[in-house]
Amino acid sequence: MRIALLGTGGVCHVLAPALLDLGHEVVVGTRSPRTTLDTNTAYAELAARLPALELRTFAEAVPGADLVVNAIDGPSCVAALTPLAEVLAGHVVMDVSSPMDWTVPDAVLDPVNTDSLGERLQRALPRARVVKTLNTVAARAMTAPEAIGDGDHTVFLSGDDDAAKAVVGDLLRALGWRDVLDLGGIRTSRATEMMLRMWIDAVTALGTSMIGFKIVR
Amino acid sequence: MRIALLGTGGVCHVLAPALLDLGHEVVVGTRSPRTTLDTNTAYAELAARLPALELRTFAEAVPGADLVVNAIDGPSCVAALTPLAEVLAGHVVMDVSSPMDWTVPDAVLDPVNTDSLGERLQRALPRARVVKTLNTVAARAMTAPEAIGDGDHTVFLSGDDDAAKAVVGDLLRALGWRDVLDLGGIRTSRATEMMLRMWIDAVTALGTSMIGFKIVR
Repeated sequence: MRIALLGTGGVCHVLAPALLDLGHEVVVGTRSPRTTLDTNTAYAELAARLPALELRTFAEAVPGADLVVNAIDGPSCVAALTPLAEVLAGHVVMDVSSPMDWTVPDAVLDPVNTDSLGERLQRALPRARVVKTLNTVAARAMTAPEAIGDGDHTVFLSGDDDAAKAVVGDLLRALGWRDVLDLGGIRTSRATEMMLRMWIDAVTALGTSMIGFKIVR
Repeated sequence: MRIALLGTGGVCHVLAPALLDLGHEVVVGTRSPRTTLDTNTAYAELAARLPALELRTFAEAVPGADLVVNAIDGPSCVAALTPLAEVLAGHVVMDVSSPMDWTVPDAVLDPVNTDSLGERLQRALPRARVVKTLNTVAARAMTAPEAIGDGDHTVFLSGDDDAAKAVVGDLLRALGWRDVLDLGGIRTSRATEMMLRMWIDAVTALGTSMIGFKIVR
C-alpha cells in the first residue's frame, strides 16, 4: 500500500520504519516540510536513516494513499485535519490519537464519556472512513505487540465502515497483532479512549509502559 | 471474618453464598429488613436457602464487622451510606459499585474522569477505609474468576489505606483471584470505573458478559 502518515512525532518514528519494513510506500505529512526538516532534528535524523521516506504537506501526502494515518497529537489533530475534509473524502483514516495533553501534569481526558476524538474526527471529516485503533498501547508497542506478553493481548477497532476496518485489521495482523477485536461503530472509540486512565495508572503502578490489555473470554 | 454485606441486589446474591462457603459470618444490611423480606421475593428465596444469613438494618449490620461491602446500586449508594459515616468510622469498606444507572438505555458514566464513586464514597465517609475493587467484572464473575479464561485475568485495588487493601486483597485471593493489582490511592477508582464503557462495548461485541481484563506485562 501507499500510506500517508500524518504527523512527525513519536508515533511517526515508530510507524514509519515498521511500515517500510512491511514493504509499504510511506509518505509523511506535516504542516510545512521545510520547517520540519529545519527545526525537528529527531525527524531529520529519521529521514536520513530512511531515505525511502517521503515528506510532503498534509494536503500533498494524501492523494494516491491507500491508507491515511492520523498520528498528530490528540489535542490538535481535529483542528489540523478539518481543512483536509475534501482531500480525505473516501480515504480510510486510521486514528491512533489519545484525548490528553501530555504536557499538562495530572491531566484529565477531553473529550470523554459523551464524545471521543474518534467521533470528533469522523464528524470533522464526514466523507472519510475513520477507524480508531492502537490507542491503548504505548507508541513503541504499536508495531511490536510481541514485546508485551509474547503478543497475547488485544487491539481494538472502532469505526462505521466495515471495509475500512478490514483494511486496518489486515495491517494490524501484518504488524503481529493476533487478537483484533472489532468493537463496533466509531462511537466505541469512547471505550478505548477512556482506557487511557487505566493505562496511565497501571503503568505507574507497574513501573513500565510496556503493558497491554487483554480481553479474556 | 464477620462481613456486613450492604445491599440485597444482584451482588448480594453472588457474594453472600460465596462468603459463607469460605467460612465467614455474613450479615446483610438493608434499609428495612421487614420490607425486604415482604417485597423482595428473590432475597426471601436466598434467605430461605442460606439459613446462616442474617438480615439487619444498615446501621445494625456494621458494628462488629471486620469488613463492610458496599453492594448497593451505584446511583444511590453514596446517599444511602452518608448517614452511616459515624458507624462506619474505622471500618474497611469494600466498594464494588459502578457509576451507571442500568435502568436507563445507553447511559453515560456519572461521575467520570474528574471524580469517581470510590472517591465520593471516601469523601462521604471520611473515617472509613474505602477500597474499590471487583467493579470490572460481572457480578457472577466476582466470586468465580476461574469461570473466565481459567482465571488468568486481573482484579484491581484502589484505596488510600494499605492495611485495608491488604484485608481486601486476601479476600480476593481466597475467592480465587490470582492477579491482584494495587493501582494506588482511591483516586485510581477513576481508572477502573471508566473501564465500564469498554466492559459494555466488549460484552456487546462478544455476546457474553463473562469477560475479564488482563493487564499483560
